Amino acid sequence: MKIAMLGSGFIARFYADSLIGHRRLDTLHAVYSRDIAKAKIFANDYKLPVYSDDMHEVVNHPEVDVVVISLPNDLHLAAVAACAKAGKHVLCTKPLGRTAAEAKQMLDMVEQAGVMGGYLEDLCYTPKFNKSLASVKAGALGRILWAKSREAHPGPHSNWFWDKEQSGGGCIVDLGCHCIEIARSYIGKDIKPVEVMCWAATQVHPIDAEDNAIGMVKYANGAIGQFEVSWCFRGGMDLRDEVMGTEGTIWINNFLRTGFDMFSTGKGGGYVAEKAESSQGWLFPVGDEVNELGYNHMFTDMFEAIEQNRPPAETFYDGYVVNAIIDAAYASAKSGIWEPVKIEDWRGSTQTKIATDFASFDEQYYLIKEEILPHGERKLILKDKTTGEVVVRDI
Amino acid sequence: MKIAMLGSGFIARFYADSLIGHRRLDTLHAVYSRDIAKAKIFANDYKLPVYSDDMHEVVNHPEVDVVVISLPNDLHLAAVAACAKAGKHVLCTKPLGRTAAEAKQMLDMVEQAGVMGGYLEDLCYTPKFNKSLASVKAGALGRILWAKSREAHPGPHSNWFWDKEQSGGGCIVDLGCHCIEIARSYIGKDIKPVEVMCWAATQVHPIDAEDNAIGMVKYANGAIGQFEVSWCFRGGMDLRDEVMGTEGTIWINNFLRTGFDMFSTGKGGGYVAEKAESSQGWLFPVGDEVNELGYNHMFTDMFEAIEQNRPPAETFYDGYVVNAIIDAAYASAKSGIWEPVKIEDWRGSTQTKIATDFASFDEQYYLIKEEILPHGERKLILKDKTTGEVVVRDI
Amino acid sequence: MKIAMLGSGFIARFYADSLIGHRRLDTLHAVYSRDIAKAKIFANDYKLPVYSDDMHEVVNHPEVDVVVISLPNDLHLAAVAACAKAGKHVLCTKPLGRTAAEAKQMLDMVEQAGVMGGYLEDLCYTPKFNKSLASVKAGALGRILWAKSREAHPGPHSNWFWDKEQSGGGCIVDLGCHCIEIARSYIGKDIKPVEVMCWAATQVHPIDAEDNAIGMVKYANGAIGQFEVSWCFRGGMDLRDEVMGTEGTIWINNFLRTGFDMFSTGKGGGYVAEKAESSQGWLFPVGDEVNELGYNHMFTDMFEAIEQNRPPAETFYDGYVVNAIIDAAYASAKSGIWEPVKIEDWRGSTQTKIATDFASFDEQYYLIKEEILPHGERKLILKDKTTGEVVVRDI
Amino acid sequence: MKIAMLGSGFIARFYADSLIGHRRLDTLHAVYSRDIAKAKIFANDYKLPVYSDDMHEVVNHPEVDVVVISLPNDLHLAAVAACAKAGKHVLCTKPLGRTAAEAKQMLDMVEQAGVMGGYLEDLCYTPKFNKSLASVKAGALGRILWAKSREAHPGPHSNWFWDKEQSGGGCIVDLGCHCIEIARSYIGKDIKPVEVMCWAATQVHPIDAEDNAIGMVKYANGAIGQFEVSWCFRGGMDLRDEVMGTEGTIWINNFLRTGFDMFSTGKGGGYVAEKAESSQGWLFPVGDEVNELGYNHMFTDMFEAIEQNRPPAETFYDGYVVNAIIDAAYASAKSGIWEPVKIEDWRGSTQTKIATDFASFDEQYYLIKEEILPHGERKLILKDKTTGEVVVRDI
Repeated sequence: MKIAMLGSGFIARFYADSLIGHRRLDTLHAVYSRDIAKAKIFANDYKLPVYSDDMHEVVNHPEVDVVVISLPNDLHLAAVAACAKAGKHVLCTKPLGRTAAEAKQMLDMVEQAGVMGGYLEDLCYTPKFNKSLASVKAGALGRILWAKSREAHPGPHSNWFWDKEQSGGGCIVDLGCHCIEIARSYIGKDIKPVEVMCWAATQVHPIDAEDNAIGMVKYANGAIGQFEVSWCFRGGMDLRDEVMGTEGTIWINNFLRTGFDMFSTGKGGGYVAEKAESSQGWLFPVGDEVNELGYNHMFTDMFEAIEQNRPPAETFYDGYVVNAIIDAAYASAKSGIWEPVKIEDWRGSTQTKIATDFASFDEQYYLIKEEILPHGERKLILKDKTTGEVVVRDI
Repeated sequence: MKIAMLGSGFIARFYADSLIGHRRLDTLHAVYSRDIAKAKIFANDYKLPVYSDDMHEVVNHPEVDVVVISLPNDLHLAAVAACAKAGKHVLCTKPLGRTAAEAKQMLDMVEQAGVMGGYLEDLCYTPKFNKSLASVKAGALGRILWAKSREAHPGPHSNWFWDKEQSGGGCIVDLGCHCIEIARSYIGKDIKPVEVMCWAATQVHPIDAEDNAIGMVKYANGAIGQFEVSWCFRGGMDLRDEVMGTEGTIWINNFLRTGFDMFSTGKGGGYVAEKAESSQGWLFPVGDEVNELGYNHMFTDMFEAIEQNRPPAETFYDGYVVNAIIDAAYASAKSGIWEPVKIEDWRGSTQTKIATDFASFDEQYYLIKEEILPHGERKLILKDKTTGEVVVRDI
Repeated sequence: MKIAMLGSGFIARFYADSLIGHRRLDTLHAVYSRDIAKAKIFANDYKLPVYSDDMHEVVNHPEVDVVVISLPNDLHLAAVAACAKAGKHVLCTKPLGRTAAEAKQMLDMVEQAGVMGGYLEDLCYTPKFNKSLASVKAGALGRILWAKSREAHPGPHSNWFWDKEQSGGGCIVDLGCHCIEIARSYIGKDIKPVEVMCWAATQVHPIDAEDNAIGMVKYANGAIGQFEVSWCFRGGMDLRDEVMGTEGTIWINNFLRTGFDMFSTGKGGGYVAEKAESSQGWLFPVGDEVNELGYNHMFTDMFEAIEQNRPPAETFYDGYVVNAIIDAAYASAKSGIWEPVKIEDWRGSTQTKIATDFASFDEQYYLIKEEILPHGERKLILKDKTTGEVVVRDI
Repeated sequence: MKIAMLGSGFIARFYADSLIGHRRLDTLHAVYSRDIAKAKIFANDYKLPVYSDDMHEVVNHPEVDVVVISLPNDLHLAAVAACAKAGKHVLCTKPLGRTAAEAKQMLDMVEQAGVMGGYLEDLCYTPKFNKSLASVKAGALGRILWAKSREAHPGPHSNWFWDKEQSGGGCIVDLGCHCIEIARSYIGKDIKPVEVMCWAATQVHPIDAEDNAIGMVKYANGAIGQFEVSWCFRGGMDLRDEVMGTEGTIWINNFLRTGFDMFSTGKGGGYVAEKAESSQGWLFPVGDEVNELGYNHMFTDMFEAIEQNRPPAETFYDGYVVNAIIDAAYASAKSGIWEPVKIEDWRGSTQTKIATDFASFDEQYYLIKEEILPHGERKLILKDKTTGEVVVRDI
């Protein structure tokens, strides 16, 4: 398939590296940038026959099958509109919209046009995520109680992120979109997100948006998805997930502690490792960043989905749900109360019962805990189903 | 100094091991338990001349200088009252009270009696905590923005914890007291905790209290102290702290990943490591648990404080502040809004200004970020102080 | 390019997964197995048009451009001979030969036939290795003093490994080939390996070959390459490298501790993670095994090398050097002395001087060390160039 | 007990911190230094009533019960002689002698004088070592096959270490003494060390002794104790142990990765963490160094041994065995062959049979391995006891 790239900045290059990595079948054919000089450099670096500062020319180019959107957040809507009009499949970077309202328009456009809307949520395609999600789905962790995702670094590279009008917000919209979708995936995409409580503050940078935030998303089954996002973190890129189930635990570290430690006095030479804040002291590079961050598996799923005429794992609908949760998070950060998640078009389960499967010990008692004491004795802590009394029984 | 122990359960033995560890000057002399048989066993194990099921007899024993309270939460108040009346120094396990009201009574009692009230918050004495707090105080992390402490395990050993009447609550009162005081210490004990937002739920166990909770404590300077506590965690004891400052980061792992990994097929023999959930597979023992969990440094500080007639690092006043934060957490978990922390007798700073020290670049601009791009170019992201416009300047 | 696979066992499937992974340009076209039933299953699983139990039929198939050898060690020579005769490029799994004599024959065959002989040493293509080797070459670690590679697990899957006649030896020939080439790469492929000291023993299994071994390879510049290999390790697959240079250190962990920890009680469900020894307790899966173990980057290099008519990073010559070092290791394990590495056709540097670049402090003294004492004082430890006397000078 | 300290340098202060730490019963009473000014400073810092530059005066001081030797290696013999003559118990820092001959003299002196000779091998008393040794002794790892200990850092603080005459050698005698005794403890002190193979080189520093070495110690039961020691390591203090048994594995990290990570830009303030090479970037402090390195548990054992009239866990005899192994290591580094360990007075087991307990499957076969294949099939790899043939059997 031939692919057009809209945008030529940091993320466009990341996407391009992945698209052409490992001798892929699919080829990058055209690039659009608002700045023709940048489009030319990009086309030159990746050997693309077509470049332009006219988005419609690129989108409508007859050899282009699929369009990848790597533009600032405020330009997603217009780009998706152009693709839908041109009848081209469209893969849009995260977050889908600045608001749920924008995301809903994009969702409607691709669905009406009958093209595929792929949501480029790379962190839901990392090798560690793929394998752990399979374990969770197979029941290895039992019922999921809590899923936390944390993304924190010293702030984004491109200036438009720092302008709330273009970006739609601060670290919640930039990083929270990842964390929300990761937690939602572990808890189950079929389970409705109900309400959100969020703290957000501008603690360090002279900006209008938040640079530090923590939020909790409550799901219809009682599970909690937590996000911790920050542009104030020092030490590199902190990218960790934790999942807690009734029968198990998952801890994932995608950066900084992945089994690759390097120390350098800095006297030996210039280059040490890309992306490190420094070239001295202890450094923690990631082996193959493009693969570790999920880009390879993401694009493979997207192109196979198009060929097989099936939805990819991450669709515009998922992007819309994430935006709806972000809207609720911003509302809560302002109001200080739990705010409802407003989804116009909920497609999952409508069950609202909180899961409770208390372990019954016998007719009379619930089992609270079986305890093995230091010297090997065992005891049972039980609760009378009627009186509520807590009793101990040695065994 | 001669010491009396009130209580003979799990924590009493932990305290006793620490008190007699490493050839200490101080000796354990007497033990009280509600169950005389247990008192006798304890006295026998630790070679104590005095044991009794009459608390007043033990507290008033003429050779006892200091009383250590290791009783269930609902018995702290009466025990402190007995010590105050007897004019004995008293060291009370955590939490101080089931509520702030109880804690305040205990605080008043020891202050009126002129005896020392030491709050046995061991996790604020661990070797890692001591060293990292010194670094924070020396400014190595700059201004503290966020301090998170997490304690999670599969639930407590003793049955009284599971009875809300005796314990005063679930994992918030049991584990949150640690996490709250750890975060408060990093942020600064002089800074007033203002309000709390908390989620709590009974997700797994058939009990009246919560078995999983997450809370945020907002401080007068804008910093956030976060606690994550659970009795539903699988895999051992998860005990981790994280601190984020404008100039640095701290990550502490007190258990499960401390540089001590063991694998056993289980075929070799019985004993592998204490406290593990299993004796097969990968296990993560802690070397010297009593020292790693802070007990040695805690009792050393307490006894030296008595000798030197100075307050220890953790006093009944600290215990009272922690209880006031817990009260607010429970109120918030119920109301769903941020609830104020009510401290009758605030002894710290009354400053309420949120810290903002935005980096000024020049007369016209704030500095948002200095960026080093992959190929070595540098750029500045600036914000116009008047218009708010975000601009980029290459350097 | 169309590819034929010789062999259909464990490693053949690993190679196949990599060859068809991520929508590659290159296609697997034919498979040979000594057992026609296995060939058929393999062809079916990977949708190959051609399968056979006649190796020559597969090698000479007109649509086949490249042959991949995934056969037991004793069959490499005949397979390479067939490819060379057919004028097909050949990629051979590790080790190249059972002995250097075999490897030399294979090297000569492909060179005389003018086809490419690619040595499938995947662990010299892992993402972590690629990045760290780039750092070492850029000088970030200074002069390399020591490079250690460790590979240990509970023993291979296929039965032929355990038969010394087919395999050529035990864990040295199976795992040591990896470790030797990893260390050699860090030290520099241009530097001649001079002699080897090796301990080997059959400690656990009832076999003729060794199941545990440690060896040291001395290079012409004085650097040491160390290998630790075992089929007796419990706990999974231990795959770690360490590099020590005058200006830095590298620690790589390719398995077991890569930032992916999972705990399961085993009660939740069957599947937890592939390759774990158990499905209970703490488990340490690897995200994307094929990528983490270097297969993707390896085949990309191999096919690009063919297209660009250049040697790949790992050639049959490298395989031959590794076999020569292994021969010396076996000789040393038997003789108990340092044994010379015999390379008939050394193509690297012939420099034999041991590197010594002692830091001169001034005319009279060498600098041994500059010391910063606990309270901040600095001192110099110097050695008189003439008398050899060690002196201290405060600064 | 009242204690005299001989020496006032780095290690003397470490010992003193431990001796007075945690309100110990035992008191430090006197100090000797060759430099009276240093003795005075030391006495002042630790509040000692007695200090002197006359060793005999300190040793014979009537209030001194026990003498601790913290002197350079060449002064141990004379100091032990003085203590033995004075009839005082003596605790000597590691290594006991510069050679086995010196160590043997010291051993004979204390045994003839009837005083206790405690060998201050702190790393055989660390909390992690204590607990893991207990597990090994309880059989959790099965039969021990290999025990490796690594100690590496950028070189010692005091100048006398760098002078071969005073120190007796380089990193082998300085650090290898620790590693040898750690491995020997895991393998079993009753098992005779038979021969040693060692590589040693002076790779970086302008000194006469080695600054990098690797050695293997072969024990009478076929187990291998390995030491890796270096004064060339960059990145801090690398202190790790690994044990491999037929039923399990132990990995211990005593420094650099103990669950305590700190990052600092260095802009916040001066002090970050003691002993770090830098105050910027990622740092890995150790919580309570004195406890983590075993000093507290070591002195507790020593003093209790004296009181209970029993040998401590580490005696002068152990120090002598370690010196005998070091002598063999130096001989091997020179000769390039395995050199015998010469112990005049072996007190352990005289059994020399190599342990082999091959698993018998049935009358006809040994069991090599039971294999679980990716899709769940199980197979047995067997070896015919008579013919040696390897066969596979599906189950």
